Amino acid sequence: MVEYKDILAAYERVKGTVNKTPIMTSRTLNELTNAKIYLKCENFQRIGAFKMRGAYNTLSQLTEEQRKKGVIAHSSGNHAQAVALSAKLLNIKATIVMPNTSPQVKVNATRDTYGAEVVMCENTIEARHSTTQDLIDKHGYSLVHPYDNDNVIAGAGTAAHELLNQVEGLDMVFGPVGGGGLISGTSIAVKGFNPNIKVYAVEPKNVDDAYRSIESGQIEKNETIKSIADGLLTNLSERTFIIIKKNVDKIITVSEQEILDAMRFIWERMKIVVEPSGACSLAGVLSDQIPIENKKIGVIISGGNIDLNDFFNLIQNKIKRG
Amino acid sequence: MVEYKDILAAYERVKGTVNKTPIMTSRTLNELTNAKIYLKCENFQRIGAFKMRGAYNTLSQLTEEQRKKGVIAHSSGNHAQAVALSAKLLNIKATIVMPNTSPQVKVNATRDTYGAEVVMCENTIEARHSTTQDLIDKHGYSLVHPYDNDNVIAGAGTAAHELLNQVEGLDMVFGPVGGGGLISGTSIAVKGFNPNIKVYAVEPKNVDDAYRSIESGQIEKNETIKSIADGLLTNLSERTFIIIKKNVDKIITVSEQEILDAMRFIWERMKIVVEPSGACSLAGVLSDQIPIENKKIGVIISGGNIDLNDFFNLIQNKIKRG
Repeated sequence: MVEYKDILAAYERVKGTVNKTPIMTSRTLNELTNAKIYLKCENFQRIGAFKMRGAYNTLSQLTEEQRKKGVIAHSSGNHAQAVALSAKLLNIKATIVMPNTSPQVKVNATRDTYGAEVVMCENTIEARHSTTQDLIDKHGYSLVHPYDNDNVIAGAGTAAHELLNQVEGLDMVFGPVGGGGLISGTSIAVKGFNPNIKVYAVEPKNVDDAYRSIESGQIEKNETIKSIADGLLTNLSERTFIIIKKNVDKIITVSEQEILDAMRFIWERMKIVVEPSGACSLAGVLSDQIPIENKKIGVIISGGNIDLNDFFNLIQNKIKRG
Repeated sequence: MVEYKDILAAYERVKGTVNKTPIMTSRTLNELTNAKIYLKCENFQRIGAFKMRGAYNTLSQLTEEQRKKGVIAHSSGNHAQAVALSAKLLNIKATIVMPNTSPQVKVNATRDTYGAEVVMCENTIEARHSTTQDLIDKHGYSLVHPYDNDNVIAGAGTAAHELLNQVEGLDMVFGPVGGGGLISGTSIAVKGFNPNIKVYAVEPKNVDDAYRSIESGQIEKNETIKSIADGLLTNLSERTFIIIKKNVDKIITVSEQEILDAMRFIWERMKIVVEPSGACSLAGVLSDQIPIENKKIGVIISGGNIDLNDFFNLIQNKIKRG
C-alpha cells in the first residue's frame, strides 16, 4: 500500500515540473458557512487538473527499457492529456486510446498540443480494454492506469501535501471520489501529516458506488453513469477501496443540483472555472452533512476542464447580430 | 491633476480593505507570444472588479458632514456595487440610481448584499442625470462619479502600483480604456514608478472615442454603444483626456472578435472568469500592434462580472433531462 513517505518522495519528483497551485478563499463563502474554507485549485494545474501529478510521478520512474517502448493510457479526459504531456516532457512515446465519440477538440489537444498518438476505438469498456491490450501485446507499452496504480496515487497525494504546507491548522479536508485515486492519495497525505485531521470523500449520489462499497464492505458497481461530474463515473478498484476503508472518515453523497450550485458559486463569486467534478468537494462542504462551524477546511478542487463551446457560441452570435 | 504621490497615499488608505489581487501567468501564453505576460487579476477584487479601489479611496476621504448626508452614484455595473460596498464598510448611506432595464440580479445584489438604496429611472442618460441631481438637491448627497474624480482615479491606480511591486522589470503595461479612470490611474502609477515603462490603452474599435480623441486633439464622442465590452462604452472626460494625452504611449483598438478570442483564451486555458471589458487589454497584447517579443508585460484584467445565467441554464436543462 502507498505510504506517506511515498507521497513525500513523489513530491520531490514532481515539484519542479507540476505547478504549485494556489489556494483561493472567499469572504462571502466564509461568512456564509461561518468557517474558514481554503480551495486547493488544481484547475490551475498543468493540463487543467490534478491528473498531471500522478502521470508525471509514474512516467518519471519508468526504467530505461520501458521508456524506450513507450506508454499507453485509455481515457478521453484529463488523464489522457496528463499522460500525453508527461510523456512529451520526458521524451517518451505515448499512445492514447480514445472512444470514437470523443469531442474532436480533445482528440486534437492530445495529439497536436501534446504530441501523443491517438488510437480511436468503439465507445464501450470492452473495446477500450481490448484495443489497449492489443497494442500492449504488440509494442510492449507500459499501461498507465488512471487510478489503480501506486505511483499515480502517490502523485495525486502531492496536491494535499502542498495544501497542508500552504495552510496551517486545517481541521478537515474534502476531496471528490470517482475511481478513488485522488482521495486515496489525499487521505494518505493528510493522515500521514496529522491523523487528527478528518478526511471526507464526496461522491455524486447518481454514481455512489464508493458510498455503497463502504456500507456493504465489498466493491459495488455503478449501474448508470449519469452525472454531470463526468470525472467521477468510474468504480473503485481493490487498491483504492482498501485505502479508503482505512483512511477516509466518511463518504458524503451530493445531488446533481448541489454539484451545480457549488460550481455556480465558484464561478460567479470566486471567478474561477471549475468542472462539475471539481466542484463536488465544495458541494459536500455545503451539504450540511458534516458540522463545519468555526473549522478550517481544505477543499480539493480537482480540475477545470469543461466544454465552453455552447457558452461562447452564444456570445459569438450576439457579436454577429451586432 | 492626480500625481504619483496621490496613488501612494491612496494605497495606504485602501490596502487594508481591498484585496491585494494575485498575478496569474500561463506557460502556453508565454510560448505563444514569446514574451512574459503577467495578468493583474482585478476580477479577484472585492465586488469582482477594480472599481472597489476608487470607490473606497473616495468614500474614506469624505468629511464628517458629507458622511452624515450620504453618497450617490448612477451605474448599473461594477461602480454601483463598489460604491455600495464601500459605503457599507464605512457606515455611510449610499443611494444608487439604476436604469429600469437593469437585470434584477444586479438590483438585488446592490440592495440586499450591500445594503444600498436603489432608485430606478428611465434608461436614458438624461433621466439618470436628472434623477441623480434631484436627489443631490434634496438630500445633499455627495456624487461619486465613476471616473471623472481625482480620488477615484488615484484609487484605480493602486492596482498598477501593486502590479509594479509584484513583478520586477516590466517593460510595458496594457490596460483597457472606457471613461479613462483606470488607464489614467494606471499610467500615473507606471510613469511615476519608472517613466521608461510603456503604457498602452486598449479600446474596442466599436467605441473608439479615446483613440479618435487623441488623433483629433479634442474629446470625441461615441456614436453607437455596441460592444460586448460593456464596461468601456463611456466617453473620456476632460480630466482623463489630459492625463491620457500626457502619459499613455499609444491607444490600440481591437475588434469584437479579438476581445472574445482573448476572453476565451483566459477562460479555457487559464481557468479564470473575466468579463469582456476585462479581456480587452489582453486582446491588445495579442493584436500584433506592439512588438512584444522577449518583453515583460503587465496586463490589467479589470473585472470578472459577467451574466452566467445562459450558461448555467444549459447545464440545468441537461440535469433535468437526466
